[in-house]
Amino acid sequence: MNLILLHQHEIDANGTITLQDRRAKHICEIIKPAVGDTLSTGIIDATIGQARVLAISASDDYSVTLDIAELSQLSLNTQQFQKTNQQTLPQALDITLIIALPRPKVARRLVRLCVECGVKTIYFINSYRVEKSFWQSPMLHEEKFNEQIILGLEQCKDTIWPSVSMHKRFKPFVEDQLPDIVKGKQAVVAHPYQAEIDISADRQAITQRQKHASVIVIGPEGGFIPYEIELLQKTGLKTMGLGKRIYRVETVVPLLLGKLGL
Amino acid sequence: MNLILLHQHEIDANGTITLQDRRAKHICEIIKPAVGDTLSTGIIDATIGQARVLAISASDDYSVTLDIAELSQLSLNTQQFQKTNQQTLPQALDITLIIALPRPKVARRLVRLCVECGVKTIYFINSYRVEKSFWQSPMLHEEKFNEQIILGLEQCKDTIWPSVSMHKRFKPFVEDQLPDIVKGKQAVVAHPYQAEIDISADRQAITQRQKHASVIVIGPEGGFIPYEIELLQKTGLKTMGLGKRIYRVETVVPLLLGKLGL
Repeated sequence: MNLILLHQHEIDANGTITLQDRRAKHICEIIKPAVGDTLSTGIIDATIGQARVLAISASDDYSVTLDIAELSQLSLNTQQFQKTNQQTLPQALDITLIIALPRPKVARRLVRLCVECGVKTIYFINSYRVEKSFWQSPMLHEEKFNEQIILGLEQCKDTIWPSVSMHKRFKPFVEDQLPDIVKGKQAVVAHPYQAEIDISADRQAITQRQKHASVIVIGPEGGFIPYEIELLQKTGLKTMGLGKRIYRVETVVPLLLGKLGL
Repeated sequence: MNLILLHQHEIDANGTITLQDRRAKHICEIIKPAVGDTLSTGIIDATIGQARVLAISASDDYSVTLDIAELSQLSLNTQQFQKTNQQTLPQALDITLIIALPRPKVARRLVRLCVECGVKTIYFINSYRVEKSFWQSPMLHEEKFNEQIILGLEQCKDTIWPSVSMHKRFKPFVEDQLPDIVKGKQAVVAHPYQAEIDISADRQAITQRQKHASVIVIGPEGGFIPYEIELLQKTGLKTMGLGKRIYRVETVVPLLLGKLGL
Protein backbone atom coordinates (compact mmCIF):
# COMPACT_ATOMS: atom_id res chain seq x y z
CA MET A 1 0.00 0.00 0.00
CA ASN A 2 2.02 2.92 -1.32
CA LEU A 3 -1.00 5.20 -1.14
CA ILE A 4 -3.95 5.50 1.28
CA LEU A 5 -6.88 5.46 -1.15
CA LEU A 6 -10.24 7.00 -0.24
CA HIS A 7 -13.64 7.37 -1.86
CA GLN A 8 -14.92 10.96 -1.98
CA HIS A 9 -18.11 9.89 -0.16
CA GLU A 10 -16.09 8.59 2.80
CA ILE A 11 -14.90 12.07 3.71
CA ASP A 12 -17.18 13.78 6.22
CA ALA A 13 -18.44 17.36 6.11
CA ASN A 14 -15.55 18.88 8.09
CA GLY A 15 -12.95 17.27 5.85
CA THR A 16 -11.83 14.40 8.05
CA ILE A 17 -12.07 10.66 7.74
CA THR A 18 -11.77 7.93 10.37
CA LEU A 19 -10.50 4.61 9.02
CA GLN A 20 -11.07 1.33 10.88
CA ASP A 21 -10.46 -1.20 8.13
CA ARG A 22 -7.43 -2.71 6.35
CA ARG A 23 -6.14 0.79 5.65
CA ALA A 24 -6.11 1.59 9.38
CA LYS A 25 -4.37 -1.73 10.06
CA HIS A 26 -1.73 -0.97 7.43
CA ILE A 27 -1.14 2.53 8.78
CA CYS A 28 -0.84 1.26 12.38
CA GLU A 29 1.28 -1.82 11.66
CA ILE A 30 3.47 -0.81 8.75
CA ILE A 31 3.70 2.98 8.46
CA LYS A 32 3.40 3.66 12.24
CA PRO A 33 3.08 7.45 11.97
CA ALA A 34 2.80 9.86 14.92
CA VAL A 35 -0.05 12.33 15.30
CA GLY A 36 0.83 15.30 13.09
CA ASP A 37 2.69 13.25 10.47
CA THR A 38 1.42 13.31 6.91
CA LEU A 39 0.59 10.31 4.72
CA SER A 40 0.54 9.99 0.94
CA THR A 41 -3.20 9.86 0.28
CA GLY A 42 -5.39 9.78 -2.83
CA ILE A 43 -9.08 10.31 -3.53
CA ILE A 44 -10.50 7.99 -6.18
CA ASP A 45 -10.88 9.72 -9.55
CA ALA A 46 -9.43 12.84 -7.96
CA THR A 47 -6.06 13.94 -6.69
CA ILE A 48 -3.12 12.79 -4.59
CA GLY A 49 -1.59 14.74 -1.73
CA GLN A 50 -0.65 14.64 1.92
CA ALA A 51 -3.18 13.97 4.66
CA ARG A 52 -2.32 14.79 8.26
CA VAL A 53 -2.83 12.23 11.01
CA LEU A 54 -5.21 13.72 13.62
CA ALA A 55 -5.55 10.63 15.82
CA ILE A 56 -4.23 7.10 15.78
CA SER A 57 -5.03 4.11 17.96
CA ALA A 58 -3.90 0.52 17.66
CA SER A 59 -5.07 -0.58 21.12
CA ASP A 60 -8.27 -2.64 20.66
CA ASP A 61 -9.21 -2.03 17.07
CA TYR A 62 -7.20 -0.06 14.61
CA SER A 63 -8.44 3.48 14.14
CA VAL A 64 -6.84 6.34 12.26
CA THR A 65 -8.33 9.80 11.72
CA LEU A 66 -6.96 11.87 8.87
CA ASP A 67 -7.39 15.52 7.93
CA ILE A 68 -8.35 15.55 4.25
CA ALA A 69 -9.65 19.13 4.03
CA GLU A 70 -6.81 20.46 1.91
CA LEU A 71 -6.77 17.45 -0.39
CA SER A 72 -10.54 17.46 -0.72
CA GLN A 73 -10.70 21.15 -1.58
CA LEU A 74 -8.05 20.67 -4.20
CA SER A 75 -10.16 17.94 -5.78
CA LEU A 76 -13.21 20.18 -5.95
CA ASN A 77 -11.37 22.97 -7.79
CA THR A 78 -11.37 21.44 -11.26
CA GLN A 79 -8.74 23.66 -12.81
CA GLN A 80 -6.28 23.41 -9.97
CA PHE A 81 -7.06 19.71 -9.68
CA GLN A 82 -6.17 19.04 -13.29
CA LYS A 83 -2.93 20.95 -12.98
CA THR A 84 -1.97 19.12 -9.80
CA ASN A 85 -2.89 15.75 -11.25
CA GLN A 86 -0.60 16.24 -14.20
CA GLN A 87 2.19 16.62 -11.69
CA THR A 88 1.22 13.96 -9.22
CA LEU A 89 -0.62 11.17 -11.06
CA PRO A 90 1.24 8.69 -13.24
CA GLN A 91 0.31 8.79 -16.90
CA ALA A 92 -2.27 6.24 -18.00
CA LEU A 93 -1.17 3.67 -20.58
CA ASP A 94 -2.70 4.31 -24.00
CA ILE A 95 -3.47 0.62 -24.37
CA THR A 96 -6.86 -1.05 -24.40
CA LEU A 97 -6.81 -4.73 -23.48
CA ILE A 98 -9.35 -7.25 -24.78
CA ILE A 99 -8.80 -10.63 -23.15
CA ALA A 100 -10.58 -13.93 -23.67
CA LEU A 101 -11.83 -14.76 -20.18
CA PRO A 102 -9.22 -16.91 -18.39
CA ARG A 103 -9.83 -18.92 -15.21
CA PRO A 104 -11.59 -16.50 -12.82
CA LYS A 105 -8.66 -16.59 -10.36
CA VAL A 106 -6.35 -15.53 -13.17
CA ALA A 107 -8.82 -12.87 -14.32
CA ARG A 108 -8.74 -11.30 -10.86
CA ARG A 109 -4.92 -11.28 -10.77
CA LEU A 110 -4.88 -9.81 -14.27
CA VAL A 111 -7.12 -6.92 -13.27
CA ARG A 112 -4.77 -6.00 -10.42
CA LEU A 113 -1.74 -6.34 -12.68
CA CYS A 114 -3.23 -4.25 -15.49
CA VAL A 115 -4.30 -1.50 -13.11
CA GLU A 116 -0.81 -1.50 -11.57
CA CYS A 117 0.59 -0.95 -15.07
CA GLY A 118 -1.79 1.92 -15.87
CA VAL A 119 -4.26 0.19 -18.21
CA LYS A 120 -7.61 1.98 -17.97
CA THR A 121 -9.83 -0.15 -20.21
CA ILE A 122 -10.15 -3.93 -20.01
CA TYR A 123 -12.73 -6.03 -21.82
CA PHE A 124 -13.11 -9.71 -20.94
CA ILE A 125 -14.72 -11.50 -23.86
CA ASN A 126 -15.96 -14.94 -24.72
CA SER A 127 -14.31 -17.28 -27.22
CA TYR A 128 -14.95 -20.84 -28.36
CA ARG A 129 -12.17 -22.15 -26.06
CA VAL A 130 -13.30 -20.25 -22.93
CA GLU A 131 -14.89 -22.71 -20.51
CA LYS A 132 -18.57 -21.84 -20.16
CA SER A 133 -18.46 -22.38 -16.39
CA PHE A 134 -16.01 -19.48 -15.98
CA TRP A 135 -18.80 -16.98 -16.64
CA GLN A 136 -20.80 -18.24 -13.64
CA SER A 137 -17.97 -17.75 -11.12
CA PRO A 138 -18.70 -15.53 -8.10
CA MET A 139 -15.08 -14.36 -8.45
CA LEU A 140 -16.16 -12.26 -11.42
CA HIS A 141 -18.62 -10.17 -9.42
CA GLU A 142 -18.02 -6.45 -9.57
CA GLU A 143 -17.05 -6.12 -5.90
CA LYS A 144 -14.37 -8.80 -6.32
CA PHE A 145 -12.84 -6.91 -9.22
CA ASN A 146 -13.13 -3.68 -7.25
CA GLU A 147 -10.91 -5.16 -4.51
CA GLN A 148 -8.26 -5.92 -7.12
CA ILE A 149 -8.58 -2.49 -8.71
CA ILE A 150 -7.96 -0.87 -5.33
CA LEU A 151 -4.88 -3.05 -4.72
CA GLY A 152 -3.55 -2.06 -8.13
CA LEU A 153 -4.14 1.66 -7.63
CA GLU A 154 -2.62 1.58 -4.12
CA GLN A 155 0.49 -0.13 -5.52
CA CYS A 156 1.19 2.33 -8.35
CA LYS A 157 -0.05 5.49 -6.56
CA ASP A 158 -2.80 6.23 -9.03
CA THR A 159 -6.40 7.32 -8.38
CA ILE A 160 -8.05 6.99 -11.78
CA TRP A 161 -10.57 4.13 -11.72
CA PRO A 162 -10.39 1.83 -14.77
CA SER A 163 -13.26 0.37 -16.74
CA VAL A 164 -13.54 -3.44 -16.59
CA SER A 165 -16.40 -5.01 -18.51
CA MET A 166 -17.59 -8.52 -19.38
CA HIS A 167 -18.89 -9.60 -22.78
CA LYS A 168 -20.39 -13.06 -22.88
CA ARG A 169 -21.02 -13.18 -26.63
CA PHE A 170 -18.07 -13.07 -29.01
CA LYS A 171 -19.73 -12.19 -32.31
CA PRO A 172 -21.88 -9.26 -31.14
CA PHE A 173 -18.87 -7.83 -29.29
CA VAL A 174 -16.59 -8.05 -32.33
CA GLU A 175 -19.18 -6.88 -34.84
CA ASP A 176 -20.96 -4.18 -32.85
CA GLN A 177 -18.46 -2.83 -30.31
CA LEU A 178 -14.96 -3.58 -31.58
CA PRO A 179 -15.07 -1.29 -34.64
CA ASP A 180 -15.55 1.74 -32.38
CA ILE A 181 -12.88 0.54 -29.95
CA VAL A 182 -10.19 0.16 -32.64
CA LYS A 183 -11.09 3.27 -34.65
CA GLY A 184 -7.92 5.29 -35.29
CA LYS A 185 -5.77 2.91 -33.25
CA GLN A 186 -3.25 0.20 -33.92
CA ALA A 187 -5.07 -3.02 -33.17
CA VAL A 188 -3.41 -6.41 -32.91
CA VAL A 189 -4.40 -9.86 -31.81
CA ALA A 190 -1.65 -11.93 -30.16
CA HIS A 191 -1.77 -15.11 -32.20
CA PRO A 192 1.28 -17.28 -32.65
CA TYR A 193 0.16 -19.12 -35.79
CA GLN A 194 1.17 -17.62 -39.14
CA ALA A 195 1.17 -14.17 -37.65
CA GLU A 196 1.29 -11.13 -39.93
CA ILE A 197 3.70 -9.39 -37.54
CA ASP A 198 6.44 -11.23 -35.64
CA ILE A 199 7.12 -9.00 -32.69
CA SER A 200 10.21 -10.98 -31.67
CA ALA A 201 11.87 -10.42 -35.04
CA ASP A 202 10.47 -7.22 -36.48
CA ARG A 203 11.70 -4.38 -34.26
CA GLN A 204 10.73 -1.78 -36.84
CA ALA A 205 7.11 -2.85 -36.63
CA ILE A 206 7.24 -2.43 -32.88
CA THR A 207 8.76 1.03 -32.97
CA GLN A 208 6.10 2.09 -35.44
CA ARG A 209 3.49 0.61 -33.21
CA GLN A 210 4.74 2.34 -30.10
CA LYS A 211 3.88 5.73 -31.54
CA HIS A 212 0.17 5.05 -31.49
CA ALA A 213 -2.37 4.09 -28.92
CA SER A 214 -2.93 0.38 -29.19
CA VAL A 215 -5.64 -2.19 -28.79
CA ILE A 216 -4.32 -5.62 -27.88
CA VAL A 217 -6.52 -8.71 -28.08
CA ILE A 218 -5.35 -11.83 -26.25
CA GLY A 219 -6.90 -15.23 -26.88
CA PRO A 220 -7.71 -18.11 -24.55
CA GLU A 221 -5.43 -21.03 -23.69
CA GLY A 222 -5.10 -22.89 -26.98
CA GLY A 223 -5.77 -19.74 -28.96
CA PHE A 224 -8.71 -18.36 -30.90
CA ILE A 225 -10.27 -20.69 -33.48
CA PRO A 226 -9.84 -19.78 -37.19
CA TYR A 227 -13.39 -18.41 -37.44
CA GLU A 228 -12.69 -16.00 -34.58
CA ILE A 229 -9.36 -14.88 -36.05
CA GLU A 230 -11.04 -14.23 -39.41
CA LEU A 231 -13.74 -12.14 -37.74
CA LEU A 232 -11.09 -10.12 -35.86
CA GLN A 233 -9.11 -9.63 -39.08
CA LYS A 234 -12.25 -8.45 -40.88
CA THR A 235 -12.53 -5.77 -38.18
CA GLY A 236 -9.04 -4.58 -39.12
CA LEU A 237 -6.88 -6.32 -36.51
CA LYS A 238 -3.50 -7.73 -37.46
CA THR A 239 -2.28 -11.01 -36.01
CA MET A 240 0.95 -10.71 -34.06
CA GLY A 241 3.35 -13.49 -33.07
CA LEU A 242 5.70 -13.37 -30.09
CA GLY A 243 8.23 -15.99 -31.11
CA LYS A 244 8.16 -19.69 -30.34
CA ARG A 245 7.38 -19.57 -26.63
CA ILE A 246 3.89 -20.20 -25.35
CA TYR A 247 3.11 -17.88 -22.44
CA ARG A 248 0.49 -17.92 -19.74
CA VAL A 249 -1.94 -15.02 -20.13
CA GLU A 250 -0.68 -13.42 -16.88
CA THR A 251 2.84 -13.46 -18.36
CA VAL A 252 2.04 -12.31 -21.87
CA VAL A 253 0.04 -9.29 -20.68
CA PRO A 254 2.93 -7.53 -18.86
CA LEU A 255 5.37 -8.63 -21.59
CA LEU A 256 3.21 -6.89 -24.20
CA LEU A 257 2.60 -3.85 -21.99
CA GLY A 258 6.38 -3.58 -21.62
CA LYS A 259 6.88 -3.95 -25.34
CA LEU A 260 4.10 -1.71 -26.65
CA GLY A 261 3.39 0.58 -23.73
CA LEU A 262 5.36 1.53 -20.60
CA MET B 1 1.96 -28.59 -19.58
CA ASN B 2 2.64 -27.92 -23.25
CA LEU B 3 5.56 -30.34 -23.22
CA ILE B 4 6.22 -33.67 -21.48
CA LEU B 5 9.63 -32.98 -19.92
CA LEU B 6 12.02 -35.85 -19.06
CA HIS B 7 15.43 -36.20 -17.48
CA GLN B 8 17.91 -38.17 -19.60
CA HIS B 9 18.50 -40.56 -16.67
CA GLU B 10 14.79 -41.48 -16.54
CA ILE B 11 14.95 -43.17 -19.93
CA ASP B 12 15.71 -46.89 -19.67
CA ALA B 13 18.18 -48.87 -21.77
CA ASN B 14 15.72 -49.83 -24.50
CA GLY B 15 14.62 -46.24 -24.99
CA THR B 16 11.30 -46.28 -23.18
CA ILE B 17 10.02 -44.54 -20.09
CA THR B 18 7.07 -45.33 -17.83
CA LEU B 19 5.60 -42.28 -16.09
CA GLN B 20 3.45 -42.60 -12.96
CA ASP B 21 3.59 -39.07 -11.59
CA ARG B 22 1.96 -35.70 -12.37
CA ARG B 23 3.04 -36.08 -15.99
CA ALA B 24 1.12 -39.37 -16.27
CA LYS B 25 -1.89 -37.72 -14.61
CA HIS B 26 -1.77 -34.82 -17.04
CA ILE B 27 -1.48 -37.13 -20.05
CA CYS B 28 -4.38 -39.31 -18.86
CA GLU B 29 -6.70 -36.53 -17.75
CA ILE B 30 -6.00 -33.68 -20.15
CA ILE B 31 -4.34 -34.97 -23.32
CA LYS B 32 -6.12 -38.38 -23.32
CA PRO B 33 -4.10 -39.94 -26.17
CA ALA B 34 -4.65 -43.42 -27.62
CA VAL B 35 -1.88 -46.02 -27.85
CA GLY B 36 0.12 -45.17 -30.95
CA ASP B 37 -0.45 -41.39 -30.70
CA THR B 38 2.59 -39.14 -30.34
CA LEU B 39 3.17 -36.47 -27.67
CA SER B 40 5.34 -33.36 -27.76
CA THR B 41 8.20 -34.41 -25.49
CA GLY B 42 11.49 -32.87 -24.43
CA ILE B 43 14.63 -34.13 -22.72
CA ILE B 44 16.19 -31.66 -20.29
CA ASP B 45 19.21 -29.87 -21.78
CA ALA B 46 18.63 -31.85 -24.96
CA THR B 47 16.06 -31.87 -27.71
CA ILE B 48 12.32 -31.77 -28.33
CA GLY B 49 10.42 -34.20 -30.51
CA GLN B 50 7.56 -36.65 -30.64
CA ALA B 51 7.32 -39.64 -28.31
CA ARG B 52 4.94 -42.48 -29.15
CA VAL B 53 2.51 -43.78 -26.52
CA LEU B 54 3.19 -47.52 -26.02
CA ALA B 55 0.77 -48.10 -23.15
CA ILE B 56 -1.62 -45.98 -21.12
CA SER B 57 -3.68 -46.78 -18.06
CA ALA B 58 -5.81 -44.53 -15.89
CA SER B 59 -7.57 -47.31 -13.98
CA ASP B 60 -6.03 -47.50 -10.48
CA ASP B 61 -2.98 -45.30 -10.77
CA TYR B 62 -2.00 -43.30 -13.77
CA SER B 63 0.64 -44.98 -15.90
CA VAL B 64 1.93 -44.00 -19.33
CA THR B 65 4.74 -45.72 -21.24
CA LEU B 66 6.43 -43.73 -23.99
CA ASP B 67 8.85 -44.74 -26.73
CA ILE B 68 11.73 -42.25 -26.53
CA ALA B 69 14.26 -44.18 -28.65
CA GLU B 70 14.18 -41.81 -31.60
CA LEU B 71 14.26 -38.69 -29.46
CA SER B 72 17.00 -40.06 -27.26
CA GLN B 73 19.21 -41.04 -30.20
CA LEU B 74 18.79 -37.59 -31.64
CA SER B 75 20.01 -36.10 -28.38
CA LEU B 76 23.11 -38.28 -28.38
CA ASN B 77 24.19 -37.22 -31.86
CA THR B 78 25.57 -33.79 -31.00
CA GLN B 79 25.70 -32.37 -34.50
CA GLN B 80 22.23 -33.46 -35.48
CA PHE B 81 20.98 -32.44 -32.05
CA GLN B 82 22.25 -28.90 -32.40
CA LYS B 83 20.71 -28.57 -35.84
CA THR B 84 17.36 -29.86 -34.60
CA ASN B 85 17.43 -27.65 -31.55
CA GLN B 86 17.85 -24.53 -33.61
CA GLN B 87 14.63 -25.46 -35.31
CA THR B 88 12.66 -26.69 -32.34
CA LEU B 89 13.80 -24.84 -29.21
CA PRO B 90 12.81 -21.24 -28.56
CA GLN B 91 15.68 -18.77 -28.44
CA ALA B 92 16.97 -17.92 -24.97
CA LEU B 93 16.67 -14.31 -23.85
CA ASP B 94 20.03 -12.52 -23.78
CA ILE B 95 19.17 -11.00 -20.42
CA THR B 96 20.75 -11.74 -17.06
CA LEU B 97 18.57 -10.88 -14.07
CA ILE B 98 19.96 -9.88 -10.68
CA ILE B 99 17.15 -9.51 -8.16
CA ALA B 100 17.24 -8.45 -4.51
CA LEU B 101 15.64 -11.41 -2.77
CA PRO B 102 11.88 -10.78 -2.45
CA ARG B 103 9.51 -12.72 -0.18
CA PRO B 104 10.31 -16.40 -0.80
CA LYS B 105 6.83 -17.07 -2.25
CA VAL B 106 7.42 -14.29 -4.75
CA ALA B 107 10.93 -15.57 -5.50
CA ARG B 108 9.47 -18.95 -6.46
CA ARG B 109 6.85 -17.37 -8.75
CA LEU B 110 9.56 -15.20 -10.28
CA VAL B 111 11.71 -18.20 -11.15
CA ARG B 112 8.83 -19.83 -13.00
CA LEU B 113 8.00 -16.58 -14.77
CA CYS B 114 11.60 -15.88 -15.82
CA VAL B 115 12.07 -19.41 -17.13
CA GLU B 116 8.80 -19.13 -19.06
CA CYS B 117 10.19 -15.96 -20.69
CA GLY B 118 13.51 -17.58 -21.62
CA VAL B 119 15.82 -16.05 -19.00
CA LYS B 120 18.73 -18.45 -18.41
CA THR B 121 20.63 -16.74 -15.59
CA ILE B 122 19.10 -15.43 -12.38
CA TYR B 123 21.01 -14.21 -9.33
CA PHE B 124 19.13 -13.52 -6.10
CA ILE B 125 21.20 -11.12 -4.00
CA ASN B 126 21.07 -9.51 -0.61
CA SER B 127 20.43 -5.82 0.02
CA TYR B 128 19.99 -3.67 3.11
CA ARG B 129 16.19 -3.74 2.72
CA VAL B 130 15.92 -7.52 2.21
CA GLU B 131 14.44 -9.08 5.35
CA LYS B 132 17.09 -11.35 6.87
CA SER B 133 14.55 -14.07 7.63
CA PHE B 134 13.89 -14.55 3.91
CA TRP B 135 17.25 -16.29 3.50
CA GLN B 136 16.25 -19.01 5.99
CA SER B 137 13.06 -19.99 4.17
CA PRO B 138 12.71 -23.65 3.13
CA MET B 139 10.98 -22.33 0.01
CA LEU B 140 14.39 -21.32 -1.31
CA HIS B 141 15.76 -24.87 -1.30
CA GLU B 142 17.05 -26.06 -4.63
CA GLU B 143 14.36 -28.70 -5.11
CA LYS B 144 11.64 -26.07 -4.62
CA PHE B 145 13.15 -23.90 -7.32
CA ASN B 146 13.56 -26.96 -9.53
CA GLU B 147 9.79 -27.54 -9.41
CA GLN B 148 9.24 -24.00 -10.66
CA ILE B 149 11.89 -24.34 -13.35
CA ILE B 150 10.15 -27.46 -14.67
CA LEU B 151 6.76 -25.68 -14.71
CA GLY B 152 8.35 -22.81 -16.64
CA LEU B 153 10.05 -25.05 -19.20
CA GLU B 154 6.88 -27.12 -19.70
CA GLN B 155 4.90 -23.95 -20.32
CA CYS B 156 7.17 -22.45 -22.98
CA LYS B 157 8.30 -25.74 -24.59
CA ASP B 158 11.95 -25.28 -23.77
CA THR B 159 14.46 -27.82 -22.43
CA ILE B 160 17.48 -25.70 -21.51
CA TRP B 161 17.90 -25.62 -17.73
CA PRO B 162 18.61 -22.15 -16.30
CA SER B 163 21.10 -21.20 -13.60
CA VAL B 164 19.54 -19.83 -10.40
CA SER B 165 21.94 -18.86 -7.62
CA MET B 166 21.75 -17.21 -4.21
CA HIS B 167 24.19 -14.59 -2.91
CA LYS B 168 23.77 -13.68 0.72
CA ARG B 169 26.37 -10.93 0.83
CA PHE B 170 25.88 -7.80 -1.26
CA LYS B 171 29.34 -6.28 -1.29
CA PRO B 172 31.36 -9.38 -2.22
CA PHE B 173 28.85 -10.15 -4.97
CA VAL B 174 29.02 -6.66 -6.46
CA GLU B 175 32.80 -6.28 -6.10
CA ASP B 176 33.95 -9.79 -6.97
CA GLN B 177 31.33 -11.30 -9.28
CA LEU B 178 29.41 -8.46 -10.91
CA PRO B 179 32.31 -7.05 -12.98
CA ASP B 180 32.59 -10.35 -14.87
CA ILE B 181 28.82 -10.62 -15.28
CA VAL B 182 28.45 -7.16 -16.84
CA LYS B 183 31.61 -7.27 -18.98
CA GLY B 184 30.72 -6.25 -22.56
CA LYS B 185 27.04 -5.91 -21.74
CA GLN B 186 24.56 -3.11 -21.16
CA ALA B 187 23.95 -3.14 -17.45
CA VAL B 188 21.19 -1.20 -15.71
CA VAL B 189 19.71 -1.02 -12.26
CA ALA B 190 15.98 -0.26 -12.11
CA HIS B 191 15.90 2.66 -9.72
CA PRO B 192 13.16 5.27 -9.85
CA TYR B 193 15.02 8.06 -8.05
CA GLN B 194 17.02 10.52 -10.17
CA ALA B 195 17.59 7.86 -12.78
CA GLU B 196 20.19 8.40 -15.48
CA ILE B 197 17.89 6.81 -18.08
CA ASP B 198 14.11 7.29 -18.07
CA ILE B 199 12.85 4.29 -19.96
CA SER B 200 9.32 5.64 -20.13
CA ALA B 201 10.46 8.79 -21.92
CA ASP B 202 13.66 7.96 -23.75
CA ARG B 203 12.74 5.53 -26.50
CA GLN B 204 16.06 6.07 -28.25
CA ALA B 205 17.92 4.77 -25.22
CA ILE B 206 15.76 1.69 -25.24
CA THR B 207 16.25 0.95 -28.91
CA GLN B 208 20.00 1.32 -28.44
CA ARG B 209 19.80 -0.95 -25.47
CA GLN B 210 17.84 -3.62 -27.29
CA LYS B 211 20.74 -4.30 -29.61
CA HIS B 212 22.92 -5.66 -26.84
CA ALA B 213 22.66 -8.37 -24.31
CA SER B 214 21.59 -6.83 -21.04
CA VAL B 215 22.07 -7.23 -17.34
CA ILE B 216 19.14 -5.93 -15.29
CA VAL B 217 19.41 -5.40 -11.55
CA ILE B 218 16.16 -5.02 -9.59
CA GLY B 219 16.11 -3.75 -6.02
CA PRO B 220 14.02 -4.73 -3.02
CA GLU B 221 10.72 -3.18 -1.96
CA GLY B 222 11.65 0.38 -1.01
CA GLY B 223 14.67 0.32 -3.33
CA PHE B 224 18.42 0.00 -2.84
CA ILE B 225 19.99 2.36 -0.33
CA PRO B 226 22.31 5.11 -1.66
CA TYR B 227 25.46 3.19 -0.66
CA GLU B 228 24.31 0.19 -2.71
CA ILE B 229 23.42 2.32 -5.73
CA GLU B 230 26.85 3.98 -5.58
CA LEU B 231 28.57 0.61 -5.47
CA LEU B 232 26.55 -0.59 -8.47
CA GLN B 233 27.35 2.61 -10.36
CA LYS B 234 31.06 2.17 -9.61
CA THR B 235 30.79 -1.22 -11.29
CA GLY B 236 29.51 0.52 -14.42
CA LEU B 237 25.75 0.14 -14.05
CA LYS B 238 23.42 2.95 -15.06
CA THR B 239 20.31 3.71 -13.05
CA MET B 240 17.09 3.43 -15.02
CA GLY B 241 13.67 4.86 -14.16
CA LEU B 242 10.37 3.47 -15.38
CA GLY B 243 8.14 6.49 -14.91
CA LYS B 244 6.10 7.42 -11.87
CA ARG B 245 4.47 4.09 -11.11
CA ILE B 246 5.78 1.83 -8.40
CA TYR B 247 5.58 -1.81 -9.48
CA ARG B 248 5.72 -5.08 -7.60
CA VAL B 249 8.82 -7.05 -8.50
CA GLU B 250 6.73 -9.76 -10.19
CA THR B 251 5.24 -7.06 -12.43
CA VAL B 252 8.37 -5.10 -13.21
CA VAL B 253 10.31 -8.19 -14.29
CA PRO B 254 8.04 -9.14 -17.23
CA LEU B 255 7.56 -5.44 -18.09
CA LEU B 256 11.32 -5.04 -18.44
CA LEU B 257 11.72 -8.35 -20.27
CA GLY B 258 9.08 -7.14 -22.72
CA LYS B 259 10.80 -3.79 -23.08
CA LEU B 260 14.42 -4.90 -23.32
CA GLY B 261 14.15 -8.50 -24.42
CA LEU B 262 11.40 -10.54 -26.09
